[in-house]
Amino acid sequence: MKTKVIRLASRPQGLPTAAQFQFDTLDLPATGAGQVLLKTRYVSVDPYMRGRMNEGKSYVPPFEVGAPLAGGVVAEVIESQHEALPVGSVVVGNLPWQEYILSDGKGLNRIPTDKAPVSYFLGLLGMPGLTAYFGLLDICQPKAGETVVVSGAAGAVGLIVGQLAKIQGARVIGTAGSDEKVAYLRQLGFDEAINYKTTPDIAQALAAAAPAGVDCYFDNVGGAITDAVYDLLNKHARIALCGQISSYNDTETPVGPRPETKLLKTSARLQGFIVGDYFSRWPEGVQQLTEWYSQGKLQTEETITEGFDQIPAAFLGLFKGDNTGKAIVKVS
Amino acid sequence: MKTKVIRLASRPQGLPTAAQFQFDTLDLPATGAGQVLLKTRYVSVDPYMRGRMNEGKSYVPPFEVGAPLAGGVVAEVIESQHEALPVGSVVVGNLPWQEYILSDGKGLNRIPTDKAPVSYFLGLLGMPGLTAYFGLLDICQPKAGETVVVSGAAGAVGLIVGQLAKIQGARVIGTAGSDEKVAYLRQLGFDEAINYKTTPDIAQALAAAAPAGVDCYFDNVGGAITDAVYDLLNKHARIALCGQISSYNDTETPVGPRPETKLLKTSARLQGFIVGDYFSRWPEGVQQLTEWYSQGKLQTEETITEGFDQIPAAFLGLFKGDNTGKAIVKVS
Repeated sequence: MKTKVIRLASRPQGLPTAAQFQFDTLDLPATGAGQVLLKTRYVSVDPYMRGRMNEGKSYVPPFEVGAPLAGGVVAEVIESQHEALPVGSVVVGNLPWQEYILSDGKGLNRIPTDKAPVSYFLGLLGMPGLTAYFGLLDICQPKAGETVVVSGAAGAVGLIVGQLAKIQGARVIGTAGSDEKVAYLRQLGFDEAINYKTTPDIAQALAAAAPAGVDCYFDNVGGAITDAVYDLLNKHARIALCGQISSYNDTETPVGPRPETKLLKTSARLQGFIVGDYFSRWPEGVQQLTEWYSQGKLQTEETITEGFDQIPAAFLGLFKGDNTGKAIVKVS
Repeated sequence: MKTKVIRLASRPQGLPTAAQFQFDTLDLPATGAGQVLLKTRYVSVDPYMRGRMNEGKSYVPPFEVGAPLAGGVVAEVIESQHEALPVGSVVVGNLPWQEYILSDGKGLNRIPTDKAPVSYFLGLLGMPGLTAYFGLLDICQPKAGETVVVSGAAGAVGLIVGQLAKIQGARVIGTAGSDEKVAYLRQLGFDEAINYKTTPDIAQALAAAAPAGVDCYFDNVGGAITDAVYDLLNKHARIALCGQISSYNDTETPVGPRPETKLLKTSARLQGFIVGDYFSRWPEGVQQLTEWYSQGKLQTEETITEGFDQIPAAFLGLFKGDNTGKAIVKVS
């Protein structure tokens, strides 16, 4: 059995390009005892993957040059010698970018096909949803009436953060990079949404949107937006540091106003995190998100690109802000 | 009754000078019902007072131009019409910079005279000791075998932080600004002490002193030392943000490498705090510090300047690193 595979051709300097992705063909052996053959249905592309393309330790080990790229994948079992995963099962797991995958089943989670579109297990009901859930509810802990700011609010994580904050009764302000995204955020129930690309003075716009100051900040972006939010923090503010997409492609450490004095003056808490820190509580998170989704309290949005060969383009689009909500590639 | 008083003459731009301090004489009325007349014995000078000289909200309200400066003072009751504070009582409180003070007793704490030198209630057993206690034990929570870095380690707070970390069984690294201070830190039991003024490469020196990385950072200083520590953080590092003396006299927001990505990669927690955040737990802190002191587990050091008129000079000396341990002015 042959499958297409996408390998990391070389480590990017700055913004990745198509040159970083090497398409290849792989021979898969016959499905053996205890194994399943998977047909890939949806591939997730996520900003954190950019970090794995660099050398050096980070919160996840780097991709190896020449090895397949990998990430969240929803796939269907098309051959099985694995008791718990019969043919027709749909699974989600951290899997290589291949059209077909041979697996021993370890690390695969079987997902229901009747609760939600299966691609949602790469978004709302998967890693991004859990990131929003734990980052907001465990780190930020917004209370009713408090003000929450979310940067990258129209991204896969951000749009869930904002809705979760509304469920908690908070006032929610989101930043995003297009008027369409801003309109979508308002439709989702965000109290204020700011197009940071067209707003002449983001600090002034945030201050106007948050007259009572900022109690919680869920940061996906970093840079100038974050600088402005730090100036608006209330006493005992909580900051969940989830992503810094504005600097992922920087080749040198970005420089900016030092935040420490602002955090000191407000007795603020800033917590870096990855969803893996909450691994033991994932079932709780999935259950709660599924419940709110089925009650109509959570909506989501996907930007779906079609075709295995378009995975690199979909990934590169993340850094141009192409996606509203979860960026997904539909493979089959 | 007449008393000398020191008022804030004007708000400093950058480093304060003698011009900011206006000596004056004040007439005190006779001690009335419920009041005590205090004779000042020791005045505390502390870096945080610099922040109070600026306009604008911070964690404590600003000093008013023309009003007396104020802070931690140990004083003796020399006239009393207050039942709980008979003549001869020694008290500590947040009081104006005056040789004599009329008080209604509110906010004064009577201190024992047989447990420790009374000036220690401005240091080891007072605000700086409690700052070290809660910042290290509540925020950093060092475990035996972990590595703790303290900046400004020979200051009033830092030298207690280091000793508390040793009591917890941690490896302790301190930074300070003179060879004498470094020698003192080693004598106190610090595992490593670095003179940041003479070390050519502070990042390299810290990396060499912390081969297993940094689990806890207690920051009194900010700037280049902090940048270097951020590069050494272990997964789930805890940072207590206590002071930023390197930038207190800056007239513009200092600029430096953005720390967010480093904090994100390590799931680090950074908590700004002031000792007032722990007000309800002060008795616990004083009791524990007193116990460790009486058991010989905690030592302290004071830099004592003599004479009421020398208060401004002692305060200004803080920003030149004149003091080892607590800077105190002995008034009478």
